Amino acid sequence: MRQDRAIRTRNTILEAMASLFNEVGYDAATIAALVERTGLTRGALYFHFASKEDMARAVLDEAVTRDGLRPQTFKVQEWVDLGLLLAYRVPREPVLRAAIRLSVDPKARRLFGTRWPDWAAVGRDLLTEAQDRGELLPHTDPDAISRMVVGAWTGVQLVSETLGDTFDLSEEIARMYQLMLPSVVSPAVLARIDLSPERGERLLRADESEATAGV
Amino acid sequence: MRQDRAIRTRNTILEAMASLFNEVGYDAATIAALVERTGLTRGALYFHFASKEDMARAVLDEAVTRDGLRPQTFKVQEWVDLGLLLAYRVPREPVLRAAIRLSVDPKARRLFGTRWPDWAAVGRDLLTEAQDRGELLPHTDPDAISRMVVGAWTGVQLVSETLGDTFDLSEEIARMYQLMLPSVVSPAVLARIDLSPERGERLLRADESEATAGV
Repeated sequence: MRQDRAIRTRNTILEAMASLFNEVGYDAATIAALVERTGLTRGALYFHFASKEDMARAVLDEAVTRDGLRPQTFKVQEWVDLGLLLAYRVPREPVLRAAIRLSVDPKARRLFGTRWPDWAAVGRDLLTEAQDRGELLPHTDPDAISRMVVGAWTGVQLVSETLGDTFDLSEEIARMYQLMLPSVVSPAVLARIDLSPERGERLLRADESEATAGV
Repeated sequence: MRQDRAIRTRNTILEAMASLFNEVGYDAATIAALVERTGLTRGALYFHFASKEDMARAVLDEAVTRDGLRPQTFKVQEWVDLGLLLAYRVPREPVLRAAIRLSVDPKARRLFGTRWPDWAAVGRDLLTEAQDRGELLPHTDPDAISRMVVGAWTGVQLVSETLGDTFDLSEEIARMYQLMLPSVVSPAVLARIDLSPERGERLLRADESEATAGV
């Protein structure tokens, strides 16, 4: 019980700090503002995290996540699912949004690097498997495609965020895959790939209900 | 002559400040560091710019540029040219890079906004003209495509920049268009569109040699 509460407190702190990173940037996010926002004492904060740097690292540690991902008939579907799951989660989870924010902040990037190489590697591995199974068009370069999509995904998120609440990230990201996949995936496979904007939410809810059921 | 020198000095200041924005972010870029970097006095700096805010605005004012763009048989080629020209220029011009940097910085964005809506509008107008001329596939939405490509372009730049000198932005951006255009442009037009990575440089050099020749 006590441990559960400790985990919850840690998550509360991390989410509050992530929101500060998102609102004011890495440099201007202070422990003083975090104290004010959480209502916790400095002592309580420092019990969970040694420093602001430590919180930034924790944010980035949570950035490469496969939650909601499950095995699919086509490996290329799993690759798309990664992007659709994140498109659903990023607008709802300040910690994931902060990981992007820290990656585009010059100072934070210099201190902690980014998780983009990890994301690019995850995508490359899935696309390479897809290629080995004959799911991709000939002459497709898994490494280059994965790297490009990590970039494009990130930019679509950054731009649609600034354009306000008008745009739904899941729809924008689904459109991105719809445009690009015909140049990557063989036609027979493409016809059986689900690229709908609702897919991320659906996968995540299925995951949650199984978790609740203890499966 | 004196005016020429004033313009050169103003450009020198703006480039130095843009480099500072790129290296340390908006907040940490100071007039003191600018004095040190340029060797100019505060008086000389303030003759050209009223404040750091003023410099940030000047950076963003230069961000939406059509330099090097020229009329083409196909409007969709002009739309692609915008992206290829920028892909060549951004790694070489700190002011353009700083405009992207300021757009992803929470504080600077709050103060000055971004130029993404302007870029999206320029693209939408060109794509709408292309559509009216029958260059696009049926059911293409110029507004959504333009917005998505502004985002994707930005993200590919941000990610390939962090991955170091290994990747050439012109090649990454050309690949992005090569992947997406078959889903946007009618096949007969697509076959006549130049999507080569070298196109941005070529257009810009042609532009410069005409300018030198006084055309």
